Amino acid sequence: MVQPPKAPRRHDRAAPRAARPAGRAAFAPRAAQGDGGPVWLFGIHAVRDALTNPARVRRRLIVTANAAERLADAIATSGLTPEIADPRRFPAPLDPASVHQGAALEAEPLDWGAVRDICAPHRADPAPVVLLLDRVTDPHNVGAALRSAEVFGARAVIAPRRHAAPESGALAKAASGALERQPYLRVANLARAMDELRAMGYALIGLDGEGAQTLPEAVATTRGGPVALILGAEGPGLRALTRESCDMVARIPAARDFASLNVSNAAAVALYLAAAR
Amino acid sequence: MVQPPKAPRRHDRAAPRAARPAGRAAFAPRAAQGDGGPVWLFGIHAVRDALTNPARVRRRLIVTANAAERLADAIATSGLTPEIADPRRFPAPLDPASVHQGAALEAEPLDWGAVRDICAPHRADPAPVVLLLDRVTDPHNVGAALRSAEVFGARAVIAPRRHAAPESGALAKAASGALERQPYLRVANLARAMDELRAMGYALIGLDGEGAQTLPEAVATTRGGPVALILGAEGPGLRALTRESCDMVARIPAARDFASLNVSNAAAVALYLAAAR
Repeated sequence: MVQPPKAPRRHDRAAPRAARPAGRAAFAPRAAQGDGGPVWLFGIHAVRDALTNPARVRRRLIVTANAAERLADAIATSGLTPEIADPRRFPAPLDPASVHQGAALEAEPLDWGAVRDICAPHRADPAPVVLLLDRVTDPHNVGAALRSAEVFGARAVIAPRRHAAPESGALAKAASGALERQPYLRVANLARAMDELRAMGYALIGLDGEGAQTLPEAVATTRGGPVALILGAEGPGLRALTRESCDMVARIPAARDFASLNVSNAAAVALYLAAAR
Repeated sequence: MVQPPKAPRRHDRAAPRAARPAGRAAFAPRAAQGDGGPVWLFGIHAVRDALTNPARVRRRLIVTANAAERLADAIATSGLTPEIADPRRFPAPLDPASVHQGAALEAEPLDWGAVRDICAPHRADPAPVVLLLDRVTDPHNVGAALRSAEVFGARAVIAPRRHAAPESGALAKAASGALERQPYLRVANLARAMDELRAMGYALIGLDGEGAQTLPEAVATTRGGPVALILGAEGPGLRALTRESCDMVARIPAARDFASLNVSNAAAVALYLAAAR
């Protein structure tokens, strides 16, 4: 069943201060979000999805004539006037390794709102699943995890504002469209977000190869309730405070103990198991 | 339980022709392997694992003084004499984006042998699982899939010689050691390898979002027998000939149909399900 994508709040950062309604809280300054302000998205797929996402605040579109043709419908939807560029001198400020396919879009990061608004269980979805990533900095892993979260119907992916992959072109490309549709929340304090989730009824399951029980066993104890899955970065794993904030720590059953899963692969298996309850 | 790593055959490509026993088939020439001969592995972890793998034919080791210290034990095990390099002018011919951490090793690709030798069911392991990747070219995805294959105890990862990620430094780094231990077989013809597997009793399950049954349903039909899981590249998916060679085509159950999994994430879920039978 195709479900309508959730609508993130628009970032109104470009609006002049005086234009904000009096008494309404201003958005946090960019630096406090952990993102460096507008980001350059690139690649046909990522740019098309951002052009057609009504929640995206878009700044500037640079495309080759060829890409303009491929993106014609999305450009028309966006209302942006593209800057047509010579493919041999593509002027967007991208990392040289970026496979931009002749399309680059400067846009504001999405603001999905607060943990309590996005993650609260409700009648239509009483047992939501969320994924927390503790200091996972690789954009390819976070992008892949956003895709898996979307496929398995997770409410949100939550990461700390600092020491986590920011919304970026590389992340958007790895997320292959999911960045526009799957809430990716950045919080000031992961342990506090876990407390909020617990207060909403979530069971907090940390993942660790040394976990006392298996993840299927841990997931079975949560039947009928909301589940938060918490994964640490490869190597350091869960930080001490994160681990202490978990209700249980579980392991993915492995045939060979010296081996380890890539973090996005571990997230995919965990999300599958939580969804399959 | 830590199990001993499997021992791949050594590539004796450097041995002079005359030294080969008469009547014994020579190894295929390098080009026919789909790999460009020796590869440069890089990064402390990948280089350490390759230095301590007795099956690796090693050519040349370039390390900074700092990396030489971190790798001292592995270098001693390998018997190689390292070339100590200035970190500011690291001379190994690597892609500038390679995070080499001051360590680079030129080595021959591993030769794991033939599909029938590696994948045949036997008394100690009557229901092996193998993963086939149809034209997956991204080394990060193949590296992550090798890790998942190792974690979930798959016999081998099989890919075509052409149009697949070759054994490379980027793949080794993404595989985080698994490249040294997890058989990665490159075959001339994937459909023929599938025929071989079928002849050995494997059920061949292709993965596709349009599959008529779910993967758990498909896997349930194979109880007690060997299973081959076949995944295509993102976008094109399974090629027509590959799909026709499958016994069944199954989908990973998804909450949102327009979403899609990263290929290594899909492989991880599939390998988990096959291992959990």
